[in-house]
Amino acid sequence: MKRLVLKFGGTSVANLERIAHVAEIVAARYQECPALAVVVSAMSGKTNELVEWTKEAAGPALHGAEYDDEYDVVVASGEQVTAGLLALALRKRGLKARSWLGWQLQLKTDTAHGKARILGCDNPAFQKSVDSGEIAVVAGFQGVDDHGRVATLGRGGSDTSAVAVAAALKAGLCDIYTDVDGVYTTDPRITPKARRLEKISYEEMLELASLGAKVLQTRSVELAMNHRVPVRVLSSFEGPVAQPNSGTLVCDEEQIVEKQVVSGVAYSRDEAKFTLIGVDDHPGVAAIIFGELADAGVNVDMIVQASAKSEGRQNIVFTAPDRDAAHAGAVLEKARDKIGYQGLNVARDVAKVSVIGVGMRSHAGVAKTMFQALSAKGINIQVISTSEIKISVLIDANYTELAVRALHTAYGLDAD
Amino acid sequence: MKRLVLKFGGTSVANLERIAHVAEIVAARYQECPALAVVVSAMSGKTNELVEWTKEAAGPALHGAEYDDEYDVVVASGEQVTAGLLALALRKRGLKARSWLGWQLQLKTDTAHGKARILGCDNPAFQKSVDSGEIAVVAGFQGVDDHGRVATLGRGGSDTSAVAVAAALKAGLCDIYTDVDGVYTTDPRITPKARRLEKISYEEMLELASLGAKVLQTRSVELAMNHRVPVRVLSSFEGPVAQPNSGTLVCDEEQIVEKQVVSGVAYSRDEAKFTLIGVDDHPGVAAIIFGELADAGVNVDMIVQASAKSEGRQNIVFTAPDRDAAHAGAVLEKARDKIGYQGLNVARDVAKVSVIGVGMRSHAGVAKTMFQALSAKGINIQVISTSEIKISVLIDANYTELAVRALHTAYGLDAD
Repeated sequence: MKRLVLKFGGTSVANLERIAHVAEIVAARYQECPALAVVVSAMSGKTNELVEWTKEAAGPALHGAEYDDEYDVVVASGEQVTAGLLALALRKRGLKARSWLGWQLQLKTDTAHGKARILGCDNPAFQKSVDSGEIAVVAGFQGVDDHGRVATLGRGGSDTSAVAVAAALKAGLCDIYTDVDGVYTTDPRITPKARRLEKISYEEMLELASLGAKVLQTRSVELAMNHRVPVRVLSSFEGPVAQPNSGTLVCDEEQIVEKQVVSGVAYSRDEAKFTLIGVDDHPGVAAIIFGELADAGVNVDMIVQASAKSEGRQNIVFTAPDRDAAHAGAVLEKARDKIGYQGLNVARDVAKVSVIGVGMRSHAGVAKTMFQALSAKGINIQVISTSEIKISVLIDANYTELAVRALHTAYGLDAD
Repeated sequence: MKRLVLKFGGTSVANLERIAHVAEIVAARYQECPALAVVVSAMSGKTNELVEWTKEAAGPALHGAEYDDEYDVVVASGEQVTAGLLALALRKRGLKARSWLGWQLQLKTDTAHGKARILGCDNPAFQKSVDSGEIAVVAGFQGVDDHGRVATLGRGGSDTSAVAVAAALKAGLCDIYTDVDGVYTTDPRITPKARRLEKISYEEMLELASLGAKVLQTRSVELAMNHRVPVRVLSSFEGPVAQPNSGTLVCDEEQIVEKQVVSGVAYSRDEAKFTLIGVDDHPGVAAIIFGELADAGVNVDMIVQASAKSEGRQNIVFTAPDRDAAHAGAVLEKARDKIGYQGLNVARDVAKVSVIGVGMRSHAGVAKTMFQALSAKGINIQVISTSEIKISVLIDANYTELAVRALHTAYGLDAD
């Protein structure tokens, strides 16, 4: 293998004992590949503490974009500490290692402080150091903008850092160590029949991540897909030497020999359903509604324009994250005259259940199986939305677990 | 005033409440001078915590130069957090402010990690920002070396950072806010008659700092003297607006109109007295003894070569910090044959008491006053050492307070 990138999250480096354990894992992996970079998060809980301090310093009411550059200065210190400590722990084991902070790595970002996007990472000194056998311990979650200011990537950004480092190094593999041992066909807390997937395609993983499976951050999967970086999710709570088939490899569809029609069942309870009743039926009305919501930063998901019309009016139904429900409601209330509607109904006791699989592209009858399985359990479908590799339905939140289990069985995903 | 530099130590920024208080002081000082830089330490206790972590990560037995670069990465994060938080607190008050980390400031140091020396600071962008009215909140204690690695200045280094920033900005004044309200004629815990000095010369302050008065770090005073930066020591625990005559100004001798013969009485209990008995009296023997000790990192202070000789042998007496006593003893034991001596005696129950004053240069009888005052109290002098502006004596440690009080009175330093 040419070069290898490992990433350890906050729970894996939560204290000095865990950091020593990570050093043990890294030492074992170094035997396998001596051109190695390790990306680390802040110690678990540390980021929250730092965020609280910034809120206290700036005042909660004032927190906003005009504070975000200094917020980044404070919060990025968490990963700096972990990177230095892991470098020390590796040296204690007799290995060559050094830390790299965002500005040393020259991981360039835009200036959207607090949620910056990575623009690139091209640092010959970094590559040279890695190729010389010196383990690079990279402070995740942080980069540097064009003005030479510290910028953080937002929550979960260390995954994205790891993939960006892997892309920059043209690494053969990016191993994301976490507190779960891979990606599952569904949430194992809902059904014990959930199975670990050996492989999953970038596209499927992207749908799963967007749908709330918290294993990998969405943007890290996008970046991996764009740069064709093979990413593996595995547990840091096992022994130092990963078993050959442990974890889940996120890779190109072509590398998956036995394709399932449906690879997994996902769900999200952070959903709210908005029904705009009696909307004026004239061209451009949808553009007005969703323009207002987009300007207010509300992330609209499913949209259904009901076909039944009467007197030139129609109903429009859409979903948005439940945490934005009050905000979205206020936006719509304010724009009532501009949009022209008779009533607004907001349902917050709804959940979204989705089945994902690249096999859908070439298989008919996938939706039929879904609707039949839900119908057999007496579950009513409120909204349907589909993509090339995903079918999502909105249902009463009380039925979430029942629906997930029924679909897991219906698509043959249950473990033996 | 052209430009102003303020520095706040760890107890002044110990928590969010104290940081808000510092912001209040800074806001008041900004009215007086809108070209302002503020240098901050880590929150009190934070550096100790980070140091402990590095020891735990690297292993206590292994701690040394080969770890110091990563030690610096970890420990420097403390000042980074405070700088960001104070910038936020200043913005909350409606002021323009931004943080500057060592690498952003381009505060260049040598590569002696953990105790780096400042080489210089020349950053036009920094000066421009300060002159534009944007308050610069500088993370103290840290710089960047030629390899682009983080370097820390060692304990108390934030004072030195502040003076370096003041020198770079050609500031009219560098105000060091601390938990005492100035420099005293002696330790107020020993005599309530100790008086705050309104002014003290760089040379006197340098002697006081070297002698263990912990108000300012020695290197910060050296740097201030070399660059002729007026430094004022004052308390951050008073109101936001400093009174015109508060604190103690450390300045050129020429600026002090009413010169005292003796300005202060200092003492140190961290002393050990070594007596090498029956040393071969041949040329170069002193070079061997103190060469061995210097190579071992022992900081030798007073040296006396006893004049009484017998059979070509002599006694050599010197002092070193008590904390190095065991180490120095071992070094001398090991070099016994190389040096050639008959016995070694180490006394650890000794203290050094010193009187300091630039007035000594032009006044006779200063030493006589000292010896008479000590003699009158029955205090025996074991070793004497003098410089142009200082007389130090080594005495039995039990008499420390008595000696300090007697000298304070004898030189007319007692408050009314």
